[in-house]
Amino acid sequence: MGFFMILHYLCQKYYSMQAKHPSDSMCIMTDLVLPGETNPLNNLFGGELLARMDRAASIAARRHSRRIVVTASVNHVAFNRSIPLGSVVTVEAKVSRTFKTSMEIFIDVWTEDRESGTRAKANEAIYTFVAVDETGRPVEVPAIEPETEIEKQRFEAALRRKQLSLVLAGKLSPHDATELKALFV
Amino acid sequence: MGFFMILHYLCQKYYSMQAKHPSDSMCIMTDLVLPGETNPLNNLFGGELLARMDRAASIAARRHSRRIVVTASVNHVAFNRSIPLGSVVTVEAKVSRTFKTSMEIFIDVWTEDRESGTRAKANEAIYTFVAVDETGRPVEVPAIEPETEIEKQRFEAALRRKQLSLVLAGKLSPHDATELKALFV
Amino acid sequence: MGFFMILHYLCQKYYSMQAKHPSDSMCIMTDLVLPGETNPLNNLFGGELLARMDRAASIAARRHSRRIVVTASVNHVAFNRSIPLGSVVTVEAKVSRTFKTSMEIFIDVWTEDRESGTRAKANEAIYTFVAVDETGRPVEVPAIEPETEIEKQRFEAALRRKQLSLVLAGKLSPHDATELKALFV
Amino acid sequence: MGFFMILHYLCQKYYSMQAKHPSDSMCIMTDLVLPGETNPLNNLFGGELLARMDRAASIAARRHSRRIVVTASVNHVAFNRSIPLGSVVTVEAKVSRTFKTSMEIFIDVWTEDRESGTRAKANEAIYTFVAVDETGRPVEVPAIEPETEIEKQRFEAALRRKQLSLVLAGKLSPHDATELKALFV
Amino acid sequence: MGFFMILHYLCQKYYSMQAKHPSDSMCIMTDLVLPGETNPLNNLFGGELLARMDRAASIAARRHSRRIVVTASVNHVAFNRSIPLGSVVTVEAKVSRTFKTSMEIFIDVWTEDRESGTRAKANEAIYTFVAVDETGRPVEVPAIEPETEIEKQRFEAALRRKQLSLVLAGKLSPHDATELKALFV
Amino acid sequence: MGFFMILHYLCQKYYSMQAKHPSDSMCIMTDLVLPGETNPLNNLFGGELLARMDRAASIAARRHSRRIVVTASVNHVAFNRSIPLGSVVTVEAKVSRTFKTSMEIFIDVWTEDRESGTRAKANEAIYTFVAVDETGRPVEVPAIEPETEIEKQRFEAALRRKQLSLVLAGKLSPHDATELKALFV
Repeated sequence: MGFFMILHYLCQKYYSMQAKHPSDSMCIMTDLVLPGETNPLNNLFGGELLARMDRAASIAARRHSRRIVVTASVNHVAFNRSIPLGSVVTVEAKVSRTFKTSMEIFIDVWTEDRESGTRAKANEAIYTFVAVDETGRPVEVPAIEPETEIEKQRFEAALRRKQLSLVLAGKLSPHDATELKALFV
Repeated sequence: MGFFMILHYLCQKYYSMQAKHPSDSMCIMTDLVLPGETNPLNNLFGGELLARMDRAASIAARRHSRRIVVTASVNHVAFNRSIPLGSVVTVEAKVSRTFKTSMEIFIDVWTEDRESGTRAKANEAIYTFVAVDETGRPVEVPAIEPETEIEKQRFEAALRRKQLSLVLAGKLSPHDATELKALFV
Repeated sequence: MGFFMILHYLCQKYYSMQAKHPSDSMCIMTDLVLPGETNPLNNLFGGELLARMDRAASIAARRHSRRIVVTASVNHVAFNRSIPLGSVVTVEAKVSRTFKTSMEIFIDVWTEDRESGTRAKANEAIYTFVAVDETGRPVEVPAIEPETEIEKQRFEAALRRKQLSLVLAGKLSPHDATELKALFV
Repeated sequence: MGFFMILHYLCQKYYSMQAKHPSDSMCIMTDLVLPGETNPLNNLFGGELLARMDRAASIAARRHSRRIVVTASVNHVAFNRSIPLGSVVTVEAKVSRTFKTSMEIFIDVWTEDRESGTRAKANEAIYTFVAVDETGRPVEVPAIEPETEIEKQRFEAALRRKQLSLVLAGKLSPHDATELKALFV
Repeated sequence: MGFFMILHYLCQKYYSMQAKHPSDSMCIMTDLVLPGETNPLNNLFGGELLARMDRAASIAARRHSRRIVVTASVNHVAFNRSIPLGSVVTVEAKVSRTFKTSMEIFIDVWTEDRESGTRAKANEAIYTFVAVDETGRPVEVPAIEPETEIEKQRFEAALRRKQLSLVLAGKLSPHDATELKALFV
Repeated sequence: MGFFMILHYLCQKYYSMQAKHPSDSMCIMTDLVLPGETNPLNNLFGGELLARMDRAASIAARRHSRRIVVTASVNHVAFNRSIPLGSVVTVEAKVSRTFKTSMEIFIDVWTEDRESGTRAKANEAIYTFVAVDETGRPVEVPAIEPETEIEKQRFEAALRRKQLSLVLAGKLSPHDATELKALFV
């Protein structure tokens, strides 16, 4: 391996580990609600939406890390608004915060009314992915620098969610979850 | 409508609103992991598992309530163990607690080793469903009486999860979430 | 390979070839009838039900033999009761009899009424699977010991079905099919 | 309704009930074996082939009867030859015999070798369909007149299969199944 | 129907028929290439890409017209670059020109390299959609005003493509296709 | 490798490169329109039909060349007749002309009326496939000899289409497209 190849390798490694912005990983997935994806009320199945959000979030995580990524967890997801058959659904996913080898992805789901063209928020969700190498072992991911106001809020809240996740998994005592505890006391 | 029809109607209504046990709603869904459901590491996609759990949970909720049911929310789900292509996966869902019109469903996911026949826990998840009438309006569901030790624990914990869910949705102040607050102070 | 590894290997082999009970292989597959699986009368397609029964039966055969298994034949299947869109369908499969390298799987299909909760038999079917090694060559399977009354009846009838299958395939003369012949003379 | 419309209606009715030939209903379905349709040995799943044969047979039954048709039963099917991923599979279905409201469909399955172009028989199967009106009630179907030698053989054998089917369903005593009995005594 | 409702109706009609820009209809559909969508060389099937482009283009046409839309034709599509299993594929569709009741949609397809993050053009295609009412009858669509340089070029070229399409369909004599003829003489 | 193996190899190679007739490659794919394949007007999606035509055309190209084949381009396709849910659709594909390593496939799409049994032309399309070896490199394909009148017309027109395709791709100057130019001047 000659000097320039090493240089190239180092540059690429350097570049790929540089901090990135949430907008760099933005994945937009717009698609229709087809008949095979609906429940008895003719609305999109919750499970189908969960699967689409997983695919979109995995693309955002992959764009940020340039690695193979696997779903680590899904945060609380609420289904407030039903999405009828034939709707156009847009799933937007971007990285909201990174930890050592994991990335939190924030997902916004929109539907639009065909006649008026107005767009309404249908859902939001938070998935966590881990970057892995070809053998499935976790690897480090680049840092993230939020830019917009909402990106900064989501970045801050991610730490509380991480603590909540660890508490729920029994890996952190509620008393040590300082960020989270502050909410309640 | 004659007297006996009214009687029949009342009996049915009475019976369908009687308290039930978690085991009455138990839904077992055993199936294979097919090639179209795997990620680049040849393991079951997180999104596909989320969709299967949604279908199994909806059947448990429907068995308990005898109503049309729709997904209201998904609690925190962790993916600790990857499930390879060709695996046999068993999703077991049963109602863990009911509220006025909603039901919390606890889901256990198992895989089994083909050669040794041993069964391992791959995941657990908690979904909430709302019972609705044909127009989509929420309707009351029967109460639940836990029987086994683990059913009782899950029944108790459900209240804390409900409070957490309301806090996360901004519908309950953390200070009023008494059950939850007790964890941290 | 040390002594204990050999011992372990022998134990495992011994255990895996020990006679088993039909209930050990029982596979329960409960799922919904989705819109993409229905015919012009809005009932479950016969072909889709045949495919679900094949997957459930293959899991039962795999549990009994702890081997890769492939479909060898399907016995006569009658579709007496149509299953409408949105139904909950339960496919239950268990090994009813084993031969040298093949297993007969008995499958019962149930639907349930959402409002009354009553369960009705929709179909039954019998599939035969062969256990194979990684190269596709047939391998021996453990014996089976029926326990309940119905398991014993199905075990007995399996021999007649096996003869019928051989007669239909032209591999056995009707005059030598003693069990079967007894039915007609 | 004027005279000509009545005439037109009668002609159409007359024509649609006239005896037809098996070749009139021939349905040819050639398609690939895709990755989502294979078992762990990378061959076409038995269940997927059963589903394709059901669709092809339903088209043949519909062409013969010009009615909505539903699967009534599947005769014994043997899977003698495995069909690998990427194969071209041809399912050929045609009506082999009709009864009052039902039709027996004979199905031949072929695969072809890409390099040599030779075609090999992979399977055969027999499905029975019933013609129904829009409310699902059985309606009469036209008679069939076999033409080729093999069509005549299949036409003859259909009566024995019908009796066997009735015997297996417990609707005919083995002693009254004269055609079938002749095979054994 | 009161005065304000009429006013509202007229405003909405006015607004929905106002000229729009191509960017208003832009549909971005980013998704993975899954195993069930690949050919024997493990690349995305041409047919699957044609189907994704059709869905994305139909969303762009619907956004522009706020109507139900149906595919009218597909222009020449070349597949120059194969897209391997596991790729991230982005389909971008926007309206390039409108005629009385039809819209030409220009589609660009991109893939991105996971490790370097670079994006490459994989395909482009042109679909034509017609806007229809609930009974399937064609209805008028708003005009379009191209903004960027490339939008203007595509707008100009659309007329030649329209003429070519009419010539190919035998609805316009080559001698009357003035725009097209100019290319050759 | 002995003498007879070489002889066998040469014969096979000779045979596989001999000129063939369009009818040798004919692929007939008859199937139903299922609910998951329809648009909001309950007709077959354009994109789904494009995908079926791609699969049928690839089988015809494979039969002609006995090689792995990949889609190279799709000519102009018009969707003149909508195909409703539940229809029986027949896609017929055969090679219309070959060039050095590529094959033009002509596809006719038919639907049939269930009640009258009459068959109507729904679409036609032209796809081009390239034959490749296991590494994806183009390889030569056998010549074709059209037999029927319509096969001869399509064979002739293929050259004009080839030129049009090259002109559209910017690989041939309109002035050198002699066959095509003759149409306009």
